[in-house]
Amino acid sequence: MLPDKLQALVRLLARLPGVGDKTAQRYALFLCTADPAIARELGLALAGLEAEVGPCTRCGHVADRSAAGGLCAICADPRRDGSVLCVVGRVQDLLSIERSAAYRGRYFVLGRLLAPLEGIRAEDLPLERLKALLRDPARPVTEVLLATPPSVDGEATALLLAEELRPLGARVTRLASGVPHGGDLEFADPVTIGRAIAHRRGVE
Amino acid sequence: MLPDKLQALVRLLARLPGVGDKTAQRYALFLCTADPAIARELGLALAGLEAEVGPCTRCGHVADRSAAGGLCAICADPRRDGSVLCVVGRVQDLLSIERSAAYRGRYFVLGRLLAPLEGIRAEDLPLERLKALLRDPARPVTEVLLATPPSVDGEATALLLAEELRPLGARVTRLASGVPHGGDLEFADPVTIGRAIAHRRGVE
Repeated sequence: MLPDKLQALVRLLARLPGVGDKTAQRYALFLCTADPAIARELGLALAGLEAEVGPCTRCGHVADRSAAGGLCAICADPRRDGSVLCVVGRVQDLLSIERSAAYRGRYFVLGRLLAPLEGIRAEDLPLERLKALLRDPARPVTEVLLATPPSVDGEATALLLAEELRPLGARVTRLASGVPHGGDLEFADPVTIGRAIAHRRGVE
Repeated sequence: MLPDKLQALVRLLARLPGVGDKTAQRYALFLCTADPAIARELGLALAGLEAEVGPCTRCGHVADRSAAGGLCAICADPRRDGSVLCVVGRVQDLLSIERSAAYRGRYFVLGRLLAPLEGIRAEDLPLERLKALLRDPARPVTEVLLATPPSVDGEATALLLAEELRPLGARVTRLASGVPHGGDLEFADPVTIGRAIAHRRGVE
């Protein structure tokens, strides 16, 4: 009951993360019945996206391709502490850490986590690029903070990275895991409580 | 912390219905980190949308602009019963009625409902186009089924349409309103129960 071109648009929109057929149809109908300028501008922005935005040549964060050296805003910022490198799984995780304003070092974005069941193995991770950063004598790194998520895949990735990176000399640390701020012990899962107990700290 | 072009894309995506900044950012990061073919194809589909899909010249449903007479698939289908015309608010409502397979007549899509508080008045509805359809001697319409939603705006629109269309001779009917199929009386709102009682039917 919809024109072929509109159905093709629905199928493309349904590839967005978390978007099913119904939501995709809602977006498509909005785009073809609301102000046509919206579809036009969005079309232009998407058509130019690959040429304008790409991974930072150093850390893998998203960067303006026209920036000097292809560096992202964080790698290009001289006020960031280059001696600490925070390794995250995805750009979204980097943005969450930035919002906390608790970290002023640099990043490395893996782009994926170890997931043997989905066929993502150690050789699929950008380990060599990460090691090359740590070996660069011009920019000494003294600490690598592993900030992959506290999930099965994230923990496996952190374990692998710790083993691979420790011989390079930098101190390897891991994000603390425990009961979240404002969280209720009653509703915390047993693994989280177990970790919060195992990693308990002295009260100064 | 995101390149300007990516931030512009986030702002455009946030104009989609039901999409906030967080979801728009998720879509934008997916589009610039996943397979670039997705962004490219979506960009092409959106850039061409206005030229390829537009409102049906007769009923206002979405139609392939290259179709004969600019008619949608329903208006062009000779098997549909042209003597009944179902008036809906939005294309989505037409699609819901089509999925029920309970209706084989034609449609008229208003595109908006009467909403005085938002400044949408009678003169903003395509009343003249609707009346012209009903006056066409080549395609006599004997029944107009008002299928605007049972909301305040939908009811106001149905009342206005009933008044305007009754003098044209066709029988004016309204979708039944009552307890939905599979619905639980315990959780039905008082207005729905009130309508189900007021519109009760004899059991044959």
